[in-house]
Amino acid sequence: MTLQPILIGGQWRAANATSSFHAENPATGEKFSEAYPVSSWADCDAALNAALAAAEILRTVPPEQLAKFLTRYAERIDARKTELAEIAHAETALPKAPRLADVEIPRTTNQLRQAAAAALDGSWALPTIDAKLNIRSLLAPVGPVLAIGPNNFPFAFNGVAGGDFAAAIAAGNPVIAKAHPCHPRTSQLMAEEALAAVTETGLPPATVQMIYRTSREDGLRMAADKRLGAIGFTGSRDAGMKLKAAADAVGKPAYLEMSSINPVLILPGALAERGEKLVEEFGASCLMASGQFCTSPGLVILFAGADAEKFIAGVKAKLAATAPATLLSSGVAQSLAAGVKTVQAAGAELVAGGLPLAGNRFANTVLRASGEQFLSSPEKLQTEMFGNASLVVVVRDAAQAAEILAHLEGNLTGSIYSATNGADESLYEKISPPLRQRVGRLLNDKMPTGVAVTAAMNHGGPFPATGHPGFTAVGFPASMRRFAMLQCYDNVRPHRLPPALRDKKV
Amino acid sequence: MTLQPILIGGQWRAANATSSFHAENPATGEKFSEAYPVSSWADCDAALNAALAAAEILRTVPPEQLAKFLTRYAERIDARKTELAEIAHAETALPKAPRLADVEIPRTTNQLRQAAAAALDGSWALPTIDAKLNIRSLLAPVGPVLAIGPNNFPFAFNGVAGGDFAAAIAAGNPVIAKAHPCHPRTSQLMAEEALAAVTETGLPPATVQMIYRTSREDGLRMAADKRLGAIGFTGSRDAGMKLKAAADAVGKPAYLEMSSINPVLILPGALAERGEKLVEEFGASCLMASGQFCTSPGLVILFAGADAEKFIAGVKAKLAATAPATLLSSGVAQSLAAGVKTVQAAGAELVAGGLPLAGNRFANTVLRASGEQFLSSPEKLQTEMFGNASLVVVVRDAAQAAEILAHLEGNLTGSIYSATNGADESLYEKISPPLRQRVGRLLNDKMPTGVAVTAAMNHGGPFPATGHPGFTAVGFPASMRRFAMLQCYDNVRPHRLPPALRDKKV
Repeated sequence: MTLQPILIGGQWRAANATSSFHAENPATGEKFSEAYPVSSWADCDAALNAALAAAEILRTVPPEQLAKFLTRYAERIDARKTELAEIAHAETALPKAPRLADVEIPRTTNQLRQAAAAALDGSWALPTIDAKLNIRSLLAPVGPVLAIGPNNFPFAFNGVAGGDFAAAIAAGNPVIAKAHPCHPRTSQLMAEEALAAVTETGLPPATVQMIYRTSREDGLRMAADKRLGAIGFTGSRDAGMKLKAAADAVGKPAYLEMSSINPVLILPGALAERGEKLVEEFGASCLMASGQFCTSPGLVILFAGADAEKFIAGVKAKLAATAPATLLSSGVAQSLAAGVKTVQAAGAELVAGGLPLAGNRFANTVLRASGEQFLSSPEKLQTEMFGNASLVVVVRDAAQAAEILAHLEGNLTGSIYSATNGADESLYEKISPPLRQRVGRLLNDKMPTGVAVTAAMNHGGPFPATGHPGFTAVGFPASMRRFAMLQCYDNVRPHRLPPALRDKKV
Repeated sequence: MTLQPILIGGQWRAANATSSFHAENPATGEKFSEAYPVSSWADCDAALNAALAAAEILRTVPPEQLAKFLTRYAERIDARKTELAEIAHAETALPKAPRLADVEIPRTTNQLRQAAAAALDGSWALPTIDAKLNIRSLLAPVGPVLAIGPNNFPFAFNGVAGGDFAAAIAAGNPVIAKAHPCHPRTSQLMAEEALAAVTETGLPPATVQMIYRTSREDGLRMAADKRLGAIGFTGSRDAGMKLKAAADAVGKPAYLEMSSINPVLILPGALAERGEKLVEEFGASCLMASGQFCTSPGLVILFAGADAEKFIAGVKAKLAATAPATLLSSGVAQSLAAGVKTVQAAGAELVAGGLPLAGNRFANTVLRASGEQFLSSPEKLQTEMFGNASLVVVVRDAAQAAEILAHLEGNLTGSIYSATNGADESLYEKISPPLRQRVGRLLNDKMPTGVAVTAAMNHGGPFPATGHPGFTAVGFPASMRRFAMLQCYDNVRPHRLPPALRDKKV
């Protein structure tokens, strides 16, 4: 059996494999014919050596060349869009439209282009010059970045093309991508285009490398390797925490997006005013991509009363009226079922769904619990149910809502819906401060799904949503600052300074 | 026996103590009469609760008020300068002049004033507005900061007055200071002034709190407590690594300045050109404060030859001609002796000194090793000898120098001296890139001691110099960004936005 090659040092070459795997079509359950290698440490080691050598060269490459690469790569992805969407659809069951071809690929190439613009602009590095003392500093490339993408965005968060990739390269670092084993062929095609763009624009060949899988042990060994500059990871909390422990032990920056249930509070005035509209909004948001978004609204907090009951009944009907979609993989289906069971076992009552269906699907699910129940099992009732399931918590009053918020772990987002006539204002003032401290992005009158790629975005948040509350994984130039170290030049002779730190000619 | 009180929630109150300790005059070995408490968890818990409540209020306090506090505190320290310097001198044996009264206290109050200016200016928070999408973000206070200062700067890095303190407060956070047990009375006097300034300027009483000591277990429990926003620490690698592990496990940002040997490379052209001057410069730098600086030059790399031998002989003479000063504590003296032994055991040869002297002093010490020796024990020969001891490594050629650099751990600083006539230029080009990636601050023709408080400073560096290569502990506004979380506002109604994110009136 021939294994698919890995991309090391500018070459597609045979892996030093310990075993192999096949991806599978989640809609049909059939395995694809291509066999992919599980790399041994020898492959990791080779990638790290090549990346280290590339990093040295990249530090001397002008931003114009990085920008040219990012732009050419975007153009090449655009040119191959139809094929890419086709393959990603087969590997993930995500629809081609609306989604892969018309939303996610354009988003991905837009990210690459924004990264190119940010590299050219240069202000991301916060160059600071004290001419009097002749002390100067800026953010500079940190070194090879290990980029590990998730299952749910085969393009926009792919280690070889997504946000971490674009940010790392734009900041001047080579990337070692670990493809997600659910969509290896998609990743392979992207890596082909990346390599072609690397060659076209004259970057060091090892600027982009890719492997498919390693043993868990080798993955952690890589995370702690001194040749690595930093890690960008999007995925499960379990895997993220293991990577974090390995990287933390040796002081390696690891930027991890791990888990989030994205609380949505609907205040009584809003519910009274536009309850039916909110049922529609919430239903659409929680079923979008079958709930397989990091920002899917997994927890809704309502105030007890007839309007809350009407909302829950409305959601139940909406969920029943929508056909459950195929999930990304059998693994996702299983972990969703386990999550729902945990939440039920902690006292939540099933309102709709709750059962696995044929073909990697799960019934659209909503559960409910009282504020008292939540407060008696706050940890278990915050279990992430990644997929089409949400928990509604019905609270007694503002004090109980605030108490619940004080028990929330860190999240990527938190939303508050309030009445347009000001009726909820005093309630908002009470509950927004505790929510604000626990989320990276606070929304008003808006569901959390949909993460705009803008300089003002924060796709990040307090632990365990991510590993550090000061950084965002989406948005330029801020996301680039993750893959940088602060470098100061003290009394360094003018001709030895990086261009951005030289005295401006008058 | 009455124990000195601790500062909790705006009150000097009796500690819930598990035991007590006395500080000691390092010059005389005599214990001071005041007994200080080792706090139980109850004290930590009370401080955390009070800090959490203060943090909520501080988030609504305008920057003008924070700036007023910082300025008033600086004025109060200046007014009590003579007494403070007197007491710090008794507790640390550091000279009053030149040092405590005329250098360190002015530096400390200057830092507080720079922090005030940075708080007022507001640009530290990198406010970013996407008016079209109505998405806005800024860095915001992260929550209560535990500030743990070192033994070697009783003012400028004190948890209750130093750089971490000033940065944390200016960013809008309350501080829980842990005084260093070597200078508790100095810290107590500072805390008195801090509390007076808090009261005068109407900040929440728990904005500044202070305890003296805890058990190691309670200290680590505090580091991992969910009420805490972040940690600022300067001290030993051993203590720092334990704090880091505790904080990392729960995703708590910990900014740690731990250890650094600050390599200095003197290239052959420079040595030939101005060898005697360099002996003076190096001798002064490595004996400054008896080498008890984080940036003390602990490793010098020379190229083999007559000039190198002359330099070493010159340093030997210079060290012999200078009287060894009293070290900060018996602990410092012991660990310095142990460090020197480790370096000797790894093959370095004693050139001068090497022995403990009466009165917490240590003979001015320099050791030497060849490049081969260094490469055969790179870890042990990088042992930090905190105090008046340095290692000179004599290398064969540029390739060996580069190999040594590749084995260096992360450091705060790295210096390169080169000839003024360009003779060292190609050598500089070879060795500066590997050094650059391993240090936070690269210097030319300058010793690393002396850390200017300027916006362009980086007092930070790759692990294990610090815990994260992206941040500086000195310099405003950059140092404030450590004590912040990124907060995004998505579609939030205008009147609910923080002032810095509102649309500017045209």
